[in-house]
Amino acid sequence: MGISEDGSIRVDVAVVGAGISGLGAAKALHEAGLEVLVLEAAQRVGGRLLTRTLEDGTAFDLGGQWVGPQMSRISRLIHELGLSTFEQHDSGRIDLAAQPLSSMDKLVQAEWEWVKAKLGVLVERVNLPQPALTPDALELDARSVEEWKRENLDSPYLRNLFDQIIRTEYTIEPKDFSVLNLLYSLKSAGGFEGILGLERGNESLRVQEGMGTLCERLAATLGQRVHTNCQVHEILHTEHGATLVAEGLSVQAKRVVMAVPPNQAIRIDFDPVLPRRRTRLMQRLEMGAVIKCFAFYERPFWRERPVNPVDPDHLLFDDTIDATSADGRHPALVAFIGGDDAVLWSDKPPTLRRRAVLEDLALVFGEEALYPTGYFDHDWLTEPFIGGGYACYAPPGVMSAGFEQLREPTGCIHWAGTETAVHYYGYVEGALEAGERAAAEVLQVMRGQLSQARG
Amino acid sequence: MGISEDGSIRVDVAVVGAGISGLGAAKALHEAGLEVLVLEAAQRVGGRLLTRTLEDGTAFDLGGQWVGPQMSRISRLIHELGLSTFEQHDSGRIDLAAQPLSSMDKLVQAEWEWVKAKLGVLVERVNLPQPALTPDALELDARSVEEWKRENLDSPYLRNLFDQIIRTEYTIEPKDFSVLNLLYSLKSAGGFEGILGLERGNESLRVQEGMGTLCERLAATLGQRVHTNCQVHEILHTEHGATLVAEGLSVQAKRVVMAVPPNQAIRIDFDPVLPRRRTRLMQRLEMGAVIKCFAFYERPFWRERPVNPVDPDHLLFDDTIDATSADGRHPALVAFIGGDDAVLWSDKPPTLRRRAVLEDLALVFGEEALYPTGYFDHDWLTEPFIGGGYACYAPPGVMSAGFEQLREPTGCIHWAGTETAVHYYGYVEGALEAGERAAAEVLQVMRGQLSQARG
Repeated sequence: MGISEDGSIRVDVAVVGAGISGLGAAKALHEAGLEVLVLEAAQRVGGRLLTRTLEDGTAFDLGGQWVGPQMSRISRLIHELGLSTFEQHDSGRIDLAAQPLSSMDKLVQAEWEWVKAKLGVLVERVNLPQPALTPDALELDARSVEEWKRENLDSPYLRNLFDQIIRTEYTIEPKDFSVLNLLYSLKSAGGFEGILGLERGNESLRVQEGMGTLCERLAATLGQRVHTNCQVHEILHTEHGATLVAEGLSVQAKRVVMAVPPNQAIRIDFDPVLPRRRTRLMQRLEMGAVIKCFAFYERPFWRERPVNPVDPDHLLFDDTIDATSADGRHPALVAFIGGDDAVLWSDKPPTLRRRAVLEDLALVFGEEALYPTGYFDHDWLTEPFIGGGYACYAPPGVMSAGFEQLREPTGCIHWAGTETAVHYYGYVEGALEAGERAAAEVLQVMRGQLSQARG
Repeated sequence: MGISEDGSIRVDVAVVGAGISGLGAAKALHEAGLEVLVLEAAQRVGGRLLTRTLEDGTAFDLGGQWVGPQMSRISRLIHELGLSTFEQHDSGRIDLAAQPLSSMDKLVQAEWEWVKAKLGVLVERVNLPQPALTPDALELDARSVEEWKRENLDSPYLRNLFDQIIRTEYTIEPKDFSVLNLLYSLKSAGGFEGILGLERGNESLRVQEGMGTLCERLAATLGQRVHTNCQVHEILHTEHGATLVAEGLSVQAKRVVMAVPPNQAIRIDFDPVLPRRRTRLMQRLEMGAVIKCFAFYERPFWRERPVNPVDPDHLLFDDTIDATSADGRHPALVAFIGGDDAVLWSDKPPTLRRRAVLEDLALVFGEEALYPTGYFDHDWLTEPFIGGGYACYAPPGVMSAGFEQLREPTGCIHWAGTETAVHYYGYVEGALEAGERAAAEVLQVMRGQLSQARG
């Protein structure tokens, strides 16, 4: 790292955003011998990953919390940073019916198998790196997931189940994103089967120390190369790269990695401006909305008896699951409020929300749920440099207009963030893939320039 | 105007945005005896209204340019500021067929009448101040204008005509906004008939000195009360109103009028934050995209002979019209590039755009169009504090989620801008209505407070 004549810091690569994507990119670049500097607008690193640690050291993830064993990048990083995983306990889930789907009416079962098969065929045809090249892309993109559901599912039970899966998985209303976006997400995450059910799925493991802790440790390996409280306001292209005008800091970099969500990237002033098509695309993507609520109890009573069947439409949250600590010392449930309900409840006082969550937990799990030993929640809409979670989704008509452009470099700027991932878009694994891909792009360009200079 | 102990300026009302809506609000407040201050981020006043004046004083409007005789507010203001209007010359328009619609196939004529009647019935049922209360609002809002067109129009000629009208009128693709938004706009602007045809319609008159000049004169009546180059970054609610943190300036105001488009209002940091529902709504509205191109000629040759029939899908622009100066000394055509094409061409070099526009003008009006005596265009996507034009529209699913909230006060902040207008939403008249309505809200509150203080 050098200091320019004008007092600005000089580095090889400036990374904007210290979420897992930016930190992953910075790690790769640092290990390749480049001078990197990570600029994070918030007071903390981690982005959509955030751990709350109790006094006794037990960690709970207020943000992204799951990994699957097949997610190689995040699994490697967890191992490398000395963290450990444990299995998600399969209890504490909302049950839509008095009995599991497998013992239900044969007709309903058959319809579900049929819909899954249909989705399977559609997912198969998705062009993963370039969704616009998917057969019938325009038609699939013109339709909302809600419309698709109404056309393809008759059983009210299955419509409810489908809604619940979509809302829990995507934190956006089925009416607000396109079928093509859903299919692309599914293919990116290994298909519909990977999302249904926990066993060996994308949500089968938790990190004992917490996902936020993972980011903190990753940032610690970069030391003074990570600046928090350092919002980037402007990125100006220069003859040799870019100048980043940040809060109380100016940085000269040969290359830039943008690792912030699209809905935040558009708040930065670029000079020259980004291509309009690109800006429009980023403007039109919509960040999901989610509030994650933890309730702690003396004992995990939901593991002991069957839960009450409920219609999730009547509940504040879309899904719940066991959130007990690895050692079992802190029995807990976590509930997810997503989509329009999250927006609605974000505007209400936290005390009202707490009461409403506990009352609805009691509807599902019995009166005992009304009396937690502790409660906290995290409203992701209040995060000033994120504005929601889990990820940005594409309303009808947007994805076919060039979603793949999100990962195309613009001048000396390379684009990371889970929204630019080919695999596991919307997941932690995708964020890491995107960060490492952006780092690889930078390395390729800079090595090319180096050999040109030598040659 | 006073200066606080901390050096900030103290006024009764701060108006954010010096477009016609903000200036209109400031005028009303100033005339009512209140201390106002208008803060404009751009280097100029006028917002979406901008006049380019030739050396001999002839004015051409690069932005909004038309008024209709039934638009009482803007007509009054034009008169009051000593400007004059003249009639739009009905020539230089693209013709979709070799003959006018009135002499076409009886079937096509009947289909067009039928579709207009259908639209008329739907428009009739729209709840104008509160679109969410329109019968079947959810259904009308779930559907895009594109889908409605495909369902209701069979004739390829009429589909083209419909597309052309929509793109010209709304500068957004039919797939990208909802039927409810279209119906609301139509009702707000006096129905479908007001939009078709020029005679006594919403686009029948031009202002001789230009609409931008109107704004400049309006700003001049306010003198030092208008600050340009003064972007507002933060608005903090205080005990007695709000503090506005602007570029090089801090303002204490009892009340605030926000008169910037919704897509720009979300760039300001509010403390406390705006209701999430409100922020989400503003995020999801989309600003139209338009590039307005003027070509000047020795003589108005398009008035002399019939134009060539063309399919507007094959043209760069959606529509053209005579733009000759009132005195006839500057024969000119104006062409409108709107929607996705505007976004696409915004990314291309201006010289390419000029050539493409002239070549397409030649397709319609003959080879003479290739040789203008002058040419300029204005790409509204490049305006840093506007980002497009004419107005913000609502993609499917957005309007039914509470569009009318746009005009609800939040704390001491009142909301103006054409997007909040009840009548002529998207028009200059609507911007003025909204500004005057916001000013009336402020006056009502402040007079109430005054009489309370006296009582």
